[in-house]
Amino acid sequence: MSSIPPTARGLEGVIALESRLCRIDGERGELVYCGYDIRDLARNTTFEETAYLLWHGELPNRGALEDLQGRLAAGRALEPQVIELLESAPSSADPMSVLRTAVSALALVDPERDDASPAANLRKAIRLTARTPGIVAAFDRIRRGRAPVAPRSDLSTAADFLYRLTGRVPGEAAERIFDACLVLHAEHGLNASTFAARVIGATLADMYAAISGAIGALAGPLHGGANIEVMAMLEDIRSSGQDPAGWVRARLARKERIMGFGHRVYRTLDPRAAILRDLLVHLGEERGDRTWLDLSTRIRDTVEAEKGLQPNVDFYSASVYAMLDIPRDLFTPIFAVSRMTGWTAHLLEQWSDNRLIRPREAYVGPSDRTVPPLDDRR
Amino acid sequence: MSSIPPTARGLEGVIALESRLCRIDGERGELVYCGYDIRDLARNTTFEETAYLLWHGELPNRGALEDLQGRLAAGRALEPQVIELLESAPSSADPMSVLRTAVSALALVDPERDDASPAANLRKAIRLTARTPGIVAAFDRIRRGRAPVAPRSDLSTAADFLYRLTGRVPGEAAERIFDACLVLHAEHGLNASTFAARVIGATLADMYAAISGAIGALAGPLHGGANIEVMAMLEDIRSSGQDPAGWVRARLARKERIMGFGHRVYRTLDPRAAILRDLLVHLGEERGDRTWLDLSTRIRDTVEAEKGLQPNVDFYSASVYAMLDIPRDLFTPIFAVSRMTGWTAHLLEQWSDNRLIRPREAYVGPSDRTVPPLDDRR
Repeated sequence: MSSIPPTARGLEGVIALESRLCRIDGERGELVYCGYDIRDLARNTTFEETAYLLWHGELPNRGALEDLQGRLAAGRALEPQVIELLESAPSSADPMSVLRTAVSALALVDPERDDASPAANLRKAIRLTARTPGIVAAFDRIRRGRAPVAPRSDLSTAADFLYRLTGRVPGEAAERIFDACLVLHAEHGLNASTFAARVIGATLADMYAAISGAIGALAGPLHGGANIEVMAMLEDIRSSGQDPAGWVRARLARKERIMGFGHRVYRTLDPRAAILRDLLVHLGEERGDRTWLDLSTRIRDTVEAEKGLQPNVDFYSASVYAMLDIPRDLFTPIFAVSRMTGWTAHLLEQWSDNRLIRPREAYVGPSDRTVPPLDDRR
Repeated sequence: MSSIPPTARGLEGVIALESRLCRIDGERGELVYCGYDIRDLARNTTFEETAYLLWHGELPNRGALEDLQGRLAAGRALEPQVIELLESAPSSADPMSVLRTAVSALALVDPERDDASPAANLRKAIRLTARTPGIVAAFDRIRRGRAPVAPRSDLSTAADFLYRLTGRVPGEAAERIFDACLVLHAEHGLNASTFAARVIGATLADMYAAISGAIGALAGPLHGGANIEVMAMLEDIRSSGQDPAGWVRARLARKERIMGFGHRVYRTLDPRAAILRDLLVHLGEERGDRTWLDLSTRIRDTVEAEKGLQPNVDFYSASVYAMLDIPRDLFTPIFAVSRMTGWTAHLLEQWSDNRLIRPREAYVGPSDRTVPPLDDRR
């Protein structure tokens, strides 16, 4: 096996596959879905258009968009078994574990589960994208002792989610901002959850199996959990009444990390962070409440001055979600609501030219041992 | 990024990490867990001893083994929520989807879920290994309209599983053979399901998240589903009344693959196949029923003569499980019952020196596109 290259720990820098979905230029701070810059998409498309783009490689025309909107709206209602599962979960349960279990259970009630044709897999992608927001919202209602809210087919994915979470149809600004958040989080190349989905899917396991694994990976603190930690920081500073700059400097002096800054890929500003900041300004003006914006700005200015680090997507999404009255532990499930489109697009791509994904390990353990009788063992 | 090596499709030949768990020598037909040859382990240890070996890197002495046996026995009872979930699944549901959902749901009822200490993770590994056989057996009972069987703490993992599946305590030969099957399937390096578990676990997601993903991957026809296809072949030949040699030759003449032969890693006989064949001979003699053995032997001889291919582990495990009256669609769940030890051992190893596992993709899609107005799109 002399041709095997040396261990690349964490596969860093190893190219595992080719993809037509996403280009990230960390040096120039660019994120591109299927050839379209994320700034262009966030400004000029809805989440539904972006989902179509990821699944088909092209933006929809009006007819195709209306067709997809109809399919998504028709796919929103949750099966009684899924509602029962949410009701049987303890109210203290971690929402990501609940989401993973409920999505896994969708396999049990999908008559198309065994149909691995491209058309059936696209229907499953739409079904999963349609069902996920309702699962997240219904569990939040149920754990608070409220009844789940039935979906409304006249609302966009963004508006229907906020409606089913709060029971109120959101205003236009809230819908627009939440929709942009969904566009911004839809796809980001071969991150750990997407890679997990492709590893599972490459065994030709079904979409529910692969997506359950992706949700599991996204729940990891090293992956999807970062904006929750940003929110914890913001709430900590706010409730302590401390000066944000002083709080940051004291933390840096103790060599502690400030959450929401820097990125493994982006060497300059994460383009999603710039868009989210604009949205936060807009939302603050509309609401007449600059609390989170001012707090975020003070933190950003201090971290930039002291460490030269730029805020990332998690830094501003925390404040946006807080202003939309979304509970902190739903931030990662909302990430899943959006990334469902990217995950399923990667699976459709994987299956269009499948190959098992199976690296090797280097064995570094003991050798040539012989099993001793039980009573001779120390 | 000129230092990135060319795409290794499917990461074949790429070394992703170091491991002390398993050495596979495909040229010599050797499989070694933690320094012990699989033939030695299958002959001289039980599944519980092998599980301990994988988790701790050393075989247990009598005290440690009795302690583990006690913990496994104490962890077998299923929570009412898990039983409810199994009862709410349609009887036609795929058992692997049910197992994945039920294991995912264990996260909701484990008060230790958030405790990521090595001691807590070992307890979760034991809990998962203890619960899984009961989930598989209970779903099989429930879908047949029977009540789940309560576990018996005086039985081994192997005997308790067969007891809870059939309602009868198995004979010594059946227990011994099933126990050896569990030893043989416990670990096999960085296969797709184990790799999926490590990718998910490396985000610091919890063990339930990682294991749900592993179960998902194992369900794939390119991974854990092969012995089901072997059984389909055996049943097809048997029910058709055809001569096995003629059946094989006709299939080969049509350039069709014979399931259960050849292996991506082993160039010579899969050592597990040799052990399983001995067990099948033994079980056939004990039962006075050589049906499956004779059928398997005729198929093997023909494939070997015509194609020079050796049977793999899936080829004989199908016949062994059939002789133990295990329904065909439980073969892969039983694989999961055993591999749970290897998966969890890999997670404990991953977390002992963690690093995110995140390769890159090569972007091959379009570039420099601009979003046109909706009505200008074709």
